[in-house]
Amino acid sequence: LLRSQLDEETAHEYDLTLVMNACMVLFMQSGFALLEAGAVRAKNVTNILIKNLLDACVGALVYWACGFAFAFGKVAVKDYKTGEYSGYSSANQFIGHKHFFLSYPDYKSPSIENYPVRVFHGGSFYGEFFFNFVFAATATTIISGALAERVEFGAYLVYGVIASGFIQPVTVHWAWSNGWLVYPPESLKLPPAVWYRDYAGGGNVHAVGGIAALVSCIFIGPRLGRFSPKTGRKFHIPGHSTPLTCLGAFILFIGFLSMVLGHGQSVAQGVTNLTLGGSASGLTSMMIVNLEPKVKDWWKYTVKKANRSRVIKPRTYWSFLVLVDATLAGMVSMCAGCDVLEPWGAVIIGVIVGFAFHYVEHTLVHHKVDDPVGSVAVHLVGGVIGVLLAPVFAKKEHEYSWIHWKGCDYDCVSDNANSTCLYTTSFAGDASEGKRALHPSWSDGDCLHTPFYQFAWQLLGIISILAWTIVCSIPLFFVLWKLRVLRVDADTEVRGIDIAYHGEPAYPLAAQGHGWDNEGEF
Amino acid sequence: LLRSQLDEETAHEYDLTLVMNACMVLFMQSGFALLEAGAVRAKNVTNILIKNLLDACVGALVYWACGFAFAFGKVAVKDYKTGEYSGYSSANQFIGHKHFFLSYPDYKSPSIENYPVRVFHGGSFYGEFFFNFVFAATATTIISGALAERVEFGAYLVYGVIASGFIQPVTVHWAWSNGWLVYPPESLKLPPAVWYRDYAGGGNVHAVGGIAALVSCIFIGPRLGRFSPKTGRKFHIPGHSTPLTCLGAFILFIGFLSMVLGHGQSVAQGVTNLTLGGSASGLTSMMIVNLEPKVKDWWKYTVKKANRSRVIKPRTYWSFLVLVDATLAGMVSMCAGCDVLEPWGAVIIGVIVGFAFHYVEHTLVHHKVDDPVGSVAVHLVGGVIGVLLAPVFAKKEHEYSWIHWKGCDYDCVSDNANSTCLYTTSFAGDASEGKRALHPSWSDGDCLHTPFYQFAWQLLGIISILAWTIVCSIPLFFVLWKLRVLRVDADTEVRGIDIAYHGEPAYPLAAQGHGWDNEGEF
Amino acid sequence: LLRSQLDEETAHEYDLTLVMNACMVLFMQSGFALLEAGAVRAKNVTNILIKNLLDACVGALVYWACGFAFAFGKVAVKDYKTGEYSGYSSANQFIGHKHFFLSYPDYKSPSIENYPVRVFHGGSFYGEFFFNFVFAATATTIISGALAERVEFGAYLVYGVIASGFIQPVTVHWAWSNGWLVYPPESLKLPPAVWYRDYAGGGNVHAVGGIAALVSCIFIGPRLGRFSPKTGRKFHIPGHSTPLTCLGAFILFIGFLSMVLGHGQSVAQGVTNLTLGGSASGLTSMMIVNLEPKVKDWWKYTVKKANRSRVIKPRTYWSFLVLVDATLAGMVSMCAGCDVLEPWGAVIIGVIVGFAFHYVEHTLVHHKVDDPVGSVAVHLVGGVIGVLLAPVFAKKEHEYSWIHWKGCDYDCVSDNANSTCLYTTSFAGDASEGKRALHPSWSDGDCLHTPFYQFAWQLLGIISILAWTIVCSIPLFFVLWKLRVLRVDADTEVRGIDIAYHGEPAYPLAAQGHGWDNEGEF
Repeated sequence: LLRSQLDEETAHEYDLTLVMNACMVLFMQSGFALLEAGAVRAKNVTNILIKNLLDACVGALVYWACGFAFAFGKVAVKDYKTGEYSGYSSANQFIGHKHFFLSYPDYKSPSIENYPVRVFHGGSFYGEFFFNFVFAATATTIISGALAERVEFGAYLVYGVIASGFIQPVTVHWAWSNGWLVYPPESLKLPPAVWYRDYAGGGNVHAVGGIAALVSCIFIGPRLGRFSPKTGRKFHIPGHSTPLTCLGAFILFIGFLSMVLGHGQSVAQGVTNLTLGGSASGLTSMMIVNLEPKVKDWWKYTVKKANRSRVIKPRTYWSFLVLVDATLAGMVSMCAGCDVLEPWGAVIIGVIVGFAFHYVEHTLVHHKVDDPVGSVAVHLVGGVIGVLLAPVFAKKEHEYSWIHWKGCDYDCVSDNANSTCLYTTSFAGDASEGKRALHPSWSDGDCLHTPFYQFAWQLLGIISILAWTIVCSIPLFFVLWKLRVLRVDADTEVRGIDIAYHGEPAYPLAAQGHGWDNEGEF
Repeated sequence: LLRSQLDEETAHEYDLTLVMNACMVLFMQSGFALLEAGAVRAKNVTNILIKNLLDACVGALVYWACGFAFAFGKVAVKDYKTGEYSGYSSANQFIGHKHFFLSYPDYKSPSIENYPVRVFHGGSFYGEFFFNFVFAATATTIISGALAERVEFGAYLVYGVIASGFIQPVTVHWAWSNGWLVYPPESLKLPPAVWYRDYAGGGNVHAVGGIAALVSCIFIGPRLGRFSPKTGRKFHIPGHSTPLTCLGAFILFIGFLSMVLGHGQSVAQGVTNLTLGGSASGLTSMMIVNLEPKVKDWWKYTVKKANRSRVIKPRTYWSFLVLVDATLAGMVSMCAGCDVLEPWGAVIIGVIVGFAFHYVEHTLVHHKVDDPVGSVAVHLVGGVIGVLLAPVFAKKEHEYSWIHWKGCDYDCVSDNANSTCLYTTSFAGDASEGKRALHPSWSDGDCLHTPFYQFAWQLLGIISILAWTIVCSIPLFFVLWKLRVLRVDADTEVRGIDIAYHGEPAYPLAAQGHGWDNEGEF
Repeated sequence: LLRSQLDEETAHEYDLTLVMNACMVLFMQSGFALLEAGAVRAKNVTNILIKNLLDACVGALVYWACGFAFAFGKVAVKDYKTGEYSGYSSANQFIGHKHFFLSYPDYKSPSIENYPVRVFHGGSFYGEFFFNFVFAATATTIISGALAERVEFGAYLVYGVIASGFIQPVTVHWAWSNGWLVYPPESLKLPPAVWYRDYAGGGNVHAVGGIAALVSCIFIGPRLGRFSPKTGRKFHIPGHSTPLTCLGAFILFIGFLSMVLGHGQSVAQGVTNLTLGGSASGLTSMMIVNLEPKVKDWWKYTVKKANRSRVIKPRTYWSFLVLVDATLAGMVSMCAGCDVLEPWGAVIIGVIVGFAFHYVEHTLVHHKVDDPVGSVAVHLVGGVIGVLLAPVFAKKEHEYSWIHWKGCDYDCVSDNANSTCLYTTSFAGDASEGKRALHPSWSDGDCLHTPFYQFAWQLLGIISILAWTIVCSIPLFFVLWKLRVLRVDADTEVRGIDIAYHGEPAYPLAAQGHGWDNEGEF
């Protein structure tokens, strides 16, 4: 009796933690909104704000209608005679197809016997819905940053619905539900500890959003005035407010931490790694930019030559915006493995991401891909590197850790429980401990090479997720582009979307001024 | 021993959850502050910010002094011989009168035997104080939005003290403590499951604030320049910053979610309904405005005709501010019933609120009531509709659910426990299960019509709460108006309150500029 | 078995609470960033933002490298044969020296037998790291406010590393780990209940930051244009945006509440006291300023005389910025004792702090110390008063409470367990209850004077912490000043740091404007 009450308490606490942190992840929508609003010109601010708000509003209804069904539908098979869950549907490892409109809320968390629990879903039906909805909304929001200042409102609505209702949920089914990445086909003979591991959505949230952002960026083309069509010269288009960007970034930091906190496990290690990885990445990129002599002072055209030459001495800059974006990239890279990484591994990954972020940003500009808020460099780079390096720098209690691999003597198949081997055949079939049966065709002494297969499976997983997103995005954006509904007309783009589409400038002139500086009587 | 430790743990966890979420609800003060600051002109920004901050500061001291006593005072009667709580004071179902200045912190949560628990108060004495204080502060803040840009500072202080120290706490006593709405008089012969149900303050927070805002708006009159006294023409007075409004709205969203999370029960369902209801309402209103051809382009007077005719093609607008306000109205409408509603019911209510919001906003403008930030349309409309429709769309496990009512055969009085009736007389007196004894004058087979009585009681409850607030507000604002201390003088209103009253403009000219664009030497 | 599961659950919940609230405390970095950004001129906004962000980024790496080791290193001594913790290292009560780079994560919370638990560390190794890191980052950030608008970027990096990596961690070792303040030397014969008590860092976070801010302020000198060198006249340098300041302040309020919530004990009482104390302080200071006829209308130089004389009637101001800062000072003053104070004691302390804040602000200005965001008056004044008065107004269940002291008859040494004495020698050696053995040289009936010794020890503690910080800060800032790397050159200061050092103005002119008000064709 007491036992069950304790379990109930635990389940309740778990659900509460899940939902509370999901709220903070939902708050990330405002982080993205402000970050992007600060990074665009004042004439397009209302437009970017409404898009971010709609990501949440439309996303909620779409995820309710079908997104959740595609991602988590029919996870467990209920025996309608006994009322118990007897097994899981393995019929469809590609896409879910139940619980449309949150129907049949008889979902139970997949912790039944004889089925290995690989991704923990301890929340209630509605709790899991809410938690996963906010991740879908996050993925969609990433795209809207890349299309800022030029995307047609209708086109945005279309891709928003498809991204949060279909593209992202399918990858969630693969990676977090009972899809093929989490439960690899038996025929591949993967070592028992190997499956796709992504703790907080480095792949199926950030990489999905980042690659879709890249595709959409290419289709929509750069903003007018960003690259000169004749000379090929590049012009910086500054955002209108760094305080908004700064606040947005801080909200995102807290949101990343909450992403980790949501599932309530390994939280302390997770936030420690997130903080260290983000810091390392941000400082690395800021240093690179500071050491680079090529940084252009884009603002110089507003300062008279006479002043410049005399006054401005420092010729290198400590870029705030680079620090912000690279820190975010570092945090993204921690999402996949923050629960298992060594803290020093987190720092190393952060440094790598800091370099990669800088390189990708430059490459994009070089190829005249205009990503106004750095969505691609932050989310795609961070997501992919994070998924790949998570098993490499994992702590030694994880048998798939590359750096702590003890060699074939240890990581092998054994009949003898007393051997040094990690996997004995006595584990065969004992799925309740989260391990699949060893493959029948293995023989005693076979080396499993767990870390290397784990790395390969992570690689395959992230490639599959990227490929799926590309395959879905290209037709989508191609059609929108072909129908000429992807981009606002040039007049509107030059003058600003706020007034043309929303009738609400961000800072109406009529409302400015402190009112007391008029000359003479009013 | 272990049992009691577990209970203590649970109580502790509960209190922690309560307080943590109360902090986020307190954070709503900043949401209101920013939302309202964004919606007023720059010359009145400091004024609206200080008022919102004072709502929290003054509210805390007032709620400590008397508000908590009026709301929750003398809930339980302590037997000073045994030290146990033997029963509850039913002497006063109108107003509490103990615990002034948080004295006698021997308060115990009302979970003693022989008394039905209808509103769960599991927090500690200080925890319940803090949680309920933030709700009182919220109600007060709603009013300050309606009076923005013209209310006299002293008048604001007076109504702030009275609203958070007296008007709102009394309605809390009725609806959340041991007042007559929660424990209806026996003589009414209400079905046992019927009492006033308001989970997160749709009535005694939002409707109270909304109706007081309406009363105050009428007394103070519209802002100068809003309606032309001669031609009757209406002028839009735009707010000075949409990013502030956007951030404020997002903070409010999180605050609404935290309102639900605070009591730690049905949280996942609650946040799901809140999100769906808010989204449905926001999208509905945005669509209505978009489809309406009557929307005026108020900004057109600043654009030369030649440009307009050629450049601006879309003649309908996607209004960001309508989306924000209507989403908030939808969330308000979820407060009363988010813990019991069907998700699809939440969407239906949201759509209804979306229409009602739009209609009320237009009606107010038509009658020349100037509510600068939409307090009335958001909080009054959302609150009232939410309280009324909560029992209608409740899930089927709630016997008062209208849509799931199974008819008289089920919802009736029975002596036989095996009958299909919901209420058997064997329940009589068994108050520990949260049910009152069936009324002695009922006979076997009497149909209870629970859902309809529930609806009627909700209706009576919300009418009573509105009536109480009106009865208190009218003399208050009448006196302030009569004494000519309600509104700043016209000179100050035209030029702005910030400098006249606070000496601190929101954006001092002396502090603006990036410093490097001066011609010549400094 | 169940028992241990319950304990494990509790530990897990505890860690989760710790980390979740630590995230909100980390969010305070954005609160400081916005508060300070709003309080400086637009030309230095990016500079203050990047410094606040770096406080977190650099602070994380530094605290990982050495800060945590200095603060908490080698708390428990592990017996490597049995694997158990047999005792604590009392060898070094001054500074820790283990766990550099988070190595040896075998740390266990100090709850082993035979060692009194005086500061509760129930979190996991990483959880305690993260929670304490955010406090260190907070202390550093306080300094950057005081140096705003004139500090050299490199100097900032140097003192940031030293403050969060060395100065503050050492005081944490004294006050929160196993340093000499928490475990006073036996030779002092202090009463058993007396040790340094500081619940949420009033001393080792706020007072440390505040006194370092004062030292740095003195070394760096006032901003150009703040005090006229010839006439000695004082000029107000207004901040550029009150909404940013307001939002920052609200985020700080929530952060203060989360500081209290983090350790999960006495949370309801803690937040109640924080709110009441903050409110009382804020209102007190606002009232003082309002009643003071000396307040200068600094903005008057922009208004023509003719207008002023006729229009502006109120000659006293309700200062928003004073309200904000004084409320923060009041909250700081609650940090040390919010878990033990009487609510009315919190209000009294708040009123005292309100006066002290006002006085200190004026004194600083009088002595021409230029503290742009009020760091000294907020954090030093609040921190010191809070640490000193916490035992004075403690509730009566705390034997060190001054106001509830029952006299020598009660607070004395006794052999008889039935006497009225608080401390009987039967407690001697029973350290598991958190009490030290009574000193052997005490005899029966000796009066302990616990509250007065407690006050004296608090006084000694805060003096020691301040002295330590001063001793470390003076050489640091002296060297930076002597090397002429503490302050930017005058040209840059006059024109703004953003463009000169960061190449990123906060509000680039090129990005402003709503785009549609141009005359004629574009």
